[in-house]
Amino acid sequence: MIGEQYLLLPGPTPLPEQIIRAMSRSMINHRGPAFHELLFEVTAGIRSIYKTQGNVLIYPSSGTGVMEAAVANFINPGDRVLAISTGVFGDRFASIAAAFGGQVEKISVPWGQAADPQVVRERIRQDTDKNIKAVLVSHNETSTGVVNNIASIAEALGDHPALLIVDTVSGLAAHPFNMDEWRVDVAASGSQKAFMIPPGLGFLAFNDRALKIHKQINNSRFYWDVSTGLDYLQKGQTPTTPAISLFYGLQEALRMMAEEGLDNIIKRHAFYRDLIRSGVEALGLELLAQGEAASCSVTSVIAPPQIGANKICTAMLQQFNIVLAGGQQSLQDVIFRIGHLGYVRELDLLAILAALEIILYKLGCPVELGAGVEVAQQRILQNHDQITG
Amino acid sequence: MIGEQYLLLPGPTPLPEQIIRAMSRSMINHRGPAFHELLFEVTAGIRSIYKTQGNVLIYPSSGTGVMEAAVANFINPGDRVLAISTGVFGDRFASIAAAFGGQVEKISVPWGQAADPQVVRERIRQDTDKNIKAVLVSHNETSTGVVNNIASIAEALGDHPALLIVDTVSGLAAHPFNMDEWRVDVAASGSQKAFMIPPGLGFLAFNDRALKIHKQINNSRFYWDVSTGLDYLQKGQTPTTPAISLFYGLQEALRMMAEEGLDNIIKRHAFYRDLIRSGVEALGLELLAQGEAASCSVTSVIAPPQIGANKICTAMLQQFNIVLAGGQQSLQDVIFRIGHLGYVRELDLLAILAALEIILYKLGCPVELGAGVEVAQQRILQNHDQITG
Repeated sequence: MIGEQYLLLPGPTPLPEQIIRAMSRSMINHRGPAFHELLFEVTAGIRSIYKTQGNVLIYPSSGTGVMEAAVANFINPGDRVLAISTGVFGDRFASIAAAFGGQVEKISVPWGQAADPQVVRERIRQDTDKNIKAVLVSHNETSTGVVNNIASIAEALGDHPALLIVDTVSGLAAHPFNMDEWRVDVAASGSQKAFMIPPGLGFLAFNDRALKIHKQINNSRFYWDVSTGLDYLQKGQTPTTPAISLFYGLQEALRMMAEEGLDNIIKRHAFYRDLIRSGVEALGLELLAQGEAASCSVTSVIAPPQIGANKICTAMLQQFNIVLAGGQQSLQDVIFRIGHLGYVRELDLLAILAALEIILYKLGCPVELGAGVEVAQQRILQNHDQITG
Repeated sequence: MIGEQYLLLPGPTPLPEQIIRAMSRSMINHRGPAFHELLFEVTAGIRSIYKTQGNVLIYPSSGTGVMEAAVANFINPGDRVLAISTGVFGDRFASIAAAFGGQVEKISVPWGQAADPQVVRERIRQDTDKNIKAVLVSHNETSTGVVNNIASIAEALGDHPALLIVDTVSGLAAHPFNMDEWRVDVAASGSQKAFMIPPGLGFLAFNDRALKIHKQINNSRFYWDVSTGLDYLQKGQTPTTPAISLFYGLQEALRMMAEEGLDNIIKRHAFYRDLIRSGVEALGLELLAQGEAASCSVTSVIAPPQIGANKICTAMLQQFNIVLAGGQQSLQDVIFRIGHLGYVRELDLLAILAALEIILYKLGCPVELGAGVEVAQQRILQNHDQITG
């Protein structure tokens, strides 16, 4: 098929041309002054995206790697861990904690719903002996397209000493995330989401309270050890060889993000969410997540049961070279997911809606061609400035 | 300064143009068919480089990451581990094993020398109760420029059931490494060495004997778990998001390597070793590693003590834009290291020798300009085919 794919996954995302170019630069000595400068610049940039004055370390890893780092550095074997799970990645976080000896107590939220801070508040209130040492939660649950209210969950912890550890791999920079203000202790994110660069870098942020607790944690770790990471960072280095080409991309991405402005980036993602949701609803399709729970990174659409989601994904790929994600585990063939994360344009989303209309029509669904597109166009109209001059 | 740097580190190495171009391709769905094909191709390629019919998994990580994977998957807490260390990376492997609860017994070889297989044979013979569960050793010790004789060490283990676990991060594809023939059980390597691509991928190879032992290992791991990795590989996927751009580079690198031929690549590295060693010796400088211990990836040169290695490295960088590595820990300011690994040309090495002569001369050393270059030229002459036609 002619032309580029429309890659609308919840990561990896399309790459801007200038990031590709930046990544094409020659290798440098990762123990030399040029890398020092690069490391300091991107570490400061990541800190600003997390809205933290705390510590940030960058690992050669996927997002799951820094989730493992969060567990190995901040949870002791035998520690009671409250894992709030809203889907596949919430379950994964719980599994990592269990693999490292945590006594995991899981609050499993029905898939498609956000965690209820009130439930967390209640469970924390019952923990009068302060046995719970850590609370794990996903910010944005990629598998369902649900965003959890981290501010409210943090508030629900009150003055309980448990560490609040957040997986914001697909959440950061697409939703508000105010790490210090909300008093999140540890947060994990990755490169292939709102950062618009390829997979391969993990970003671990943690405050000084977490660092103090870390000194008492004797879980098994070497690669992920944050004490070693901070020692090297002081010298402008990383403990092991850094993924240099991805650092070049990250530097360019952070400059682009600074230029656009974090608030604007977050607004843009919220607009994408509204655009795609209103368009899909105009076609008579149901959305999995409702209201405040709806993600700005990815929208889960419930496929007409007589067709199934897989058939829609396959047809979108074959007819239009559009890559959507299917559902995972119990949502397999039930939902399809439209990623609108990172380097996506609003016209790409109009095109996806138009294609979806055609495919549904061809599959025998009673859709009116143009109905979803028009609703989305109206939103764009409302969102635009007047044409002047 | 005008022009590209001469990057002569023992990793990261210079990148071929076509690998840079390959890495610039657009992202794809890592759960889709195009990635399946890519994964199968590069996994088969890595297998051929390791000369193994066994299992190979590719991680988003640095080389140290897969060393951690080797420990977390194949060593139980409390296991007695014999760690043969010939330098910084041998010590690192021992530290990782200790961090994961191994009872580490270290054979520390003086830096600059290779491990003596006879010492290993003797220690193994004494272990009549078969308490030693794993033997860790570096193939090429990057910090000293020493290559260990893995075939002889494997042979020294005889029929002792301990797993032989080899760090060949900077050894693989620059030296012979016959994993199956030598009966190496587990081997770890990385992308930024002889593979000519940027850092960020780790390659873990292990045979079925290791896999069987792995099933009894309950060390803490999730990210590195090889059972999960093999399950996903069967589906043409990786358990967590793969570093896609580096996979593109790896695919191109493996095609280039297949074209050149592994035996030729290994011969080329041995020639680089001989070229640089004879040139440096002709300048009256001493080499740290002797004879069979001399690495084909990196040559450690003992700096004239009245000057020190750091001054030479700095001058080479400032005057000629040549990046060499210094010595680490006790070898700091004692040696400098010339990497000749991966995408290096013989004329680059002549240029480095010429520059070294100038710098030594300027620093007051009694060197004859051209002396090292000429010896190296003679070697090139002997190595070349006759000019015909």
